Amino acid sequence: MSEKIRVVVDAMGGDEAPQVPVQGAVEAMQENANICITLVGKEDVIREELAKYQYDTERMNIVHAEEVIGFDEPPVMAVRKKKNSSIVVGMNLVKHGEADAFVSAGSTGAILVGGQFVIGRIKGVERAPLAPLIPTAKGPSLLIDCGANVDARSSHLLQFAQMGSIYMEHVVGIKNPKVAIVNIGAEEEKGNMLVKETYPLLKECKDINFVGSIEARDIPRGDADVIVCEAFVGNVILKLYEGLAGTLLKKVKEGLMSSLRSKIGALLIKPALKKTLKEFNTSDHGGAPLLGLKGLVVKTHGSSEPRDVKMGILQCVQFTEQKINEKIKENLTVE
Amino acid sequence: MSEKIRVVVDAMGGDEAPQVPVQGAVEAMQENANICITLVGKEDVIREELAKYQYDTERMNIVHAEEVIGFDEPPVMAVRKKKNSSIVVGMNLVKHGEADAFVSAGSTGAILVGGQFVIGRIKGVERAPLAPLIPTAKGPSLLIDCGANVDARSSHLLQFAQMGSIYMEHVVGIKNPKVAIVNIGAEEEKGNMLVKETYPLLKECKDINFVGSIEARDIPRGDADVIVCEAFVGNVILKLYEGLAGTLLKKVKEGLMSSLRSKIGALLIKPALKKTLKEFNTSDHGGAPLLGLKGLVVKTHGSSEPRDVKMGILQCVQFTEQKINEKIKENLTVE
Repeated sequence: MSEKIRVVVDAMGGDEAPQVPVQGAVEAMQENANICITLVGKEDVIREELAKYQYDTERMNIVHAEEVIGFDEPPVMAVRKKKNSSIVVGMNLVKHGEADAFVSAGSTGAILVGGQFVIGRIKGVERAPLAPLIPTAKGPSLLIDCGANVDARSSHLLQFAQMGSIYMEHVVGIKNPKVAIVNIGAEEEKGNMLVKETYPLLKECKDINFVGSIEARDIPRGDADVIVCEAFVGNVILKLYEGLAGTLLKKVKEGLMSSLRSKIGALLIKPALKKTLKEFNTSDHGGAPLLGLKGLVVKTHGSSEPRDVKMGILQCVQFTEQKINEKIKENLTVE
Repeated sequence: MSEKIRVVVDAMGGDEAPQVPVQGAVEAMQENANICITLVGKEDVIREELAKYQYDTERMNIVHAEEVIGFDEPPVMAVRKKKNSSIVVGMNLVKHGEADAFVSAGSTGAILVGGQFVIGRIKGVERAPLAPLIPTAKGPSLLIDCGANVDARSSHLLQFAQMGSIYMEHVVGIKNPKVAIVNIGAEEEKGNMLVKETYPLLKECKDINFVGSIEARDIPRGDADVIVCEAFVGNVILKLYEGLAGTLLKKVKEGLMSSLRSKIGALLIKPALKKTLKEFNTSDHGGAPLLGLKGLVVKTHGSSEPRDVKMGILQCVQFTEQKINEKIKENLTVE
């Protein structure tokens, strides 16, 4: 039997905690017998929730954490002051080698800060990027970086490209993933100062499959597997993706409800539309990894469903079994 | 009778020149008796095209320009070398006071470069931003800047906010338009260096209605009328808008064609869907103005239809009659 993968799950994280994280954790354990779960959060609340399920008690632990970091708390302050929060306690388990990974649907800011300051970066990694998968017409692409550390340097972006490439190849399973940098034109001489400095570094880098610039227009078409950008730009892309898809679909739905004729039509197209939109969805691939840390941190959406949490946990198994951090250590360009 | 508005139209610009610009120009003249048009480009080609229409010959001129700047030519070089191109000849007419405005569906890069170097900026304007209208759930919002001058400073962004505000109020007709800056969070302390420097300038500026930060997620909802950002970010937003809407609608259409049931449904919903998507469209408001120049330059989409060119020309009327440049000169913060 192969070694157990130990995943800490933030039982207090997300809009529907503890129900969603607890259910997701139980389902992940049921799906993979190699997973050991530690639920971190208020013990009495977790026990009450766990009582609803049947599960292998040998592989389930609870670690009590009295505090919870809210979505609207300033992250640096919250992580520093709330030493007994589920995020800080959970990350400390990873830091001290008592767990391999930490999964949370809690405050993105606190998770980013905690990842850097509690768990810490792998030696040589200059910044730990947050790298969500975004849906495209050809499947998911990794958007790296969407974190909170803006104003990156070119050496950071080179490392993002390398880490993203390793992740897409060994966790998502895309062979020789195409790496592109977000730019405002296809030509090498285009771009802002950061892109102009980064482009030659990516071009010279032997261990990635760099395909050049990608304009934002071509991202949804799936022209690249790893999309490298500075965090401010990555955040704009990620949020606009969510916002625009939401607004467009809302408009379409309003249109469909506008007459009897279109209402009947809507009933007929519903199954086909549902299938289509499901293809344009990435939750099957788990949450967004925070890469380059001494242990894996996975951020799932604040409005995650149990399935998302489960997929986030299974992603940790793949990450640990594939020894992604060893691969990052071996391949990273360190100045 | 009020004074005539003299608009130069690039007859060679866009994917379907000269048909589209010539037809658009004729239609604009028919709609507004105060417009005088100068078509610039290859005279024989223009004459042949004009022969198809009935129009007031008194208000229509042709100025010959032998050369055409292509979409793939490096803009600075093209504007410098092709002195006899339709873009450079047309802009020179504005520069020398022989016309009020220039409308083109040609190379964005060449139009931006020509605007700055041929026509020139209003005294005190540090940069001339390109400001397209983007569709939102509540109508169009002005996205300023989407041009080619990246790595802006905070003083540029302040001027963008002021010019954008004047434009939305007096050309588009939004009273006291809400101005927001693109950011990665709603709080004042969030953002990259540029945003942190710009935020207090916008907050202190008395002549704009600054409402704070806007996250990219909230742009499609129409939470702000004037969306201020640096050109790299603006370009990403604009292109992603196009790309994502295109990919999503293609996916939806594929879904609708996937079964007989959904095909019948598609027929029933078609009129309602068409109406909905038409609401989510900005071509009624003309093209994107390049603001802060001594004359107005309007860039319409490369794949413009005659209606887009017509609306771009009518926009010049509004711009000139409302004395937008005088308003900009009066209101701009100059360091």
